[in-house]
Parts: sequence; structure tokens; C-alpha cells
Amino acid sequence: MDPDAVAKAFVEHYYRTFDSNRAGLANLYQDGSMLTFEGAKTQGAQAIAAKLASLPFQQCMHNISTVDCQPSGPAGGMVVFVSGSLQLAGEQHPLKFSQMFHLMPTPQGSFYVLNDIFRLNYA
Amino acid sequence: MDPDAVAKAFVEHYYRTFDSNRAGLANLYQDGSMLTFEGAKTQGAQAIAAKLASLPFQQCMHNISTVDCQPSGPAGGMVVFVSGSLQLAGEQHPLKFSQMFHLMPTPQGSFYVLNDIFRLNYA
Repeated sequence: MDPDAVAKAFVEHYYRTFDSNRAGLANLYQDGSMLTFEGAKTQGAQAIAAKLASLPFQQCMHNISTVDCQPSGPAGGMVVFVSGSLQLAGEQHPLKFSQMFHLMPTPQGSFYVLNDIFRLNYA
Repeated sequence: MDPDAVAKAFVEHYYRTFDSNRAGLANLYQDGSMLTFEGAKTQGAQAIAAKLASLPFQQCMHNISTVDCQPSGPAGGMVVFVSGSLQLAGEQHPLKFSQMFHLMPTPQGSFYVLNDIFRLNYA
């Protein structure tokens, strides 16, 4: 399958899950996974899901602007770079963000997130 | 050595080289390296150096705002996420950008860039 199509499908699934069932994101991480969210580091699927659940907003909607991807190394991983905006419920203006994922293949033929770094784009 | 310090030193070296001797960046890539610059993909150290040399500006200065890094997998690599601004000679306003690097260790104890994705942050 086309890596760009795989990356795009993953990204769409990720943000759809984030916006509709944030706890479900735990399934996309493993014990060795790492999240750096606005500079704060968290490791492990459960801790990452707890961190994402604890963010100071409930309802939100991500809009994706760009998805860039590259294969990464002999283990079959890929790096994915996303830019987009995050609309929070009750807020007038969306927040621009950039986020990178390093995806690794699972034995089931899917991918999990090994590395995840998120930053808001400050104007 | 502290991974955050290694990442910061790499990033400072990368942009100092970019701003003072852009052709020297070829040494930081290898044949399997990939660059995606504003959506355009290039592979291999020489092609990447040529792409960077062909950008439609000569003098520039990068200012780094944030550097986030995580170790990545058993091969000793690390992912690095940078946000900053790019001041072009003769332009009044700097351009905000986000860039990710996937660094892999060399036998000499240094790192090379396996994956590099660059995006301007459009307002």
C-alpha cells in the first residue's frame, strides 16, 4: 500500500478518535511509546491516555492541513508530520499546531505510535 | 550524554551550518536520507544538499524557539522536533517554521539525518 495513503489514514483515524473517544487513543500506543505534549514528557500507553484525557478541554475538533510522511529505517516504521488546527468548544479562534508521529508496524499488520511530539504554533 | 543536550547541540550545529555554509549540510545526510521540504521529497545526501542550495533565498538566519527530543527504537536513533523562525535577508518579518529530524547514530559516535521534514507555519 502507498505509504502516503497509510499515513493519511492513520492520521485521520487518530484525530477522529481524539475528538470522539479520547480514551480510545490508548490502543494506538504501547508501553515503550512516548508523548511530548507542549514540552511535557509521558511514557507508556496508559500514562499517555491519562495525559491526553487530562488536557484542560473536553470537546475539540482537529482539522488537518498537511500530512507528510517518509519510510524510516529497516524495521518498517514511518515518520509522519502533521500541521493543522484545533478548535476548542466555546473558543472563537482555532489553535494552529504541528505534530510528529513515529509509527512502527505491529505483527497484526497495523501500526502503533512509538514517538509523538505535539506543539502549538505560537504566532 | 543527556539526549536533550545531544539533540540541542545537533540542532544548533545544523542551523549554524545552514546559515553560514549551506553546502556543508551534505555531511549530515547519507544516501538513504530523505528530505521533505514544503511537501517536496528529495532522497540522498547530494540531492538534498542541492535542494537546500537551490532554495530561493541566499542569506538567512534561523532562530530556534523549542527543541523536543525522544529516543527512538533499539537502533539508538532519536527523533527531534524543532520550532523556530527563519529571517531572510531583505525581508521585514521572519517566517515561523516547524521541522522534524530522525537522527541515527554513526559508527564514529555522531549522528546523521535519516528523515527530515520541514514546513512553514502558515498563519
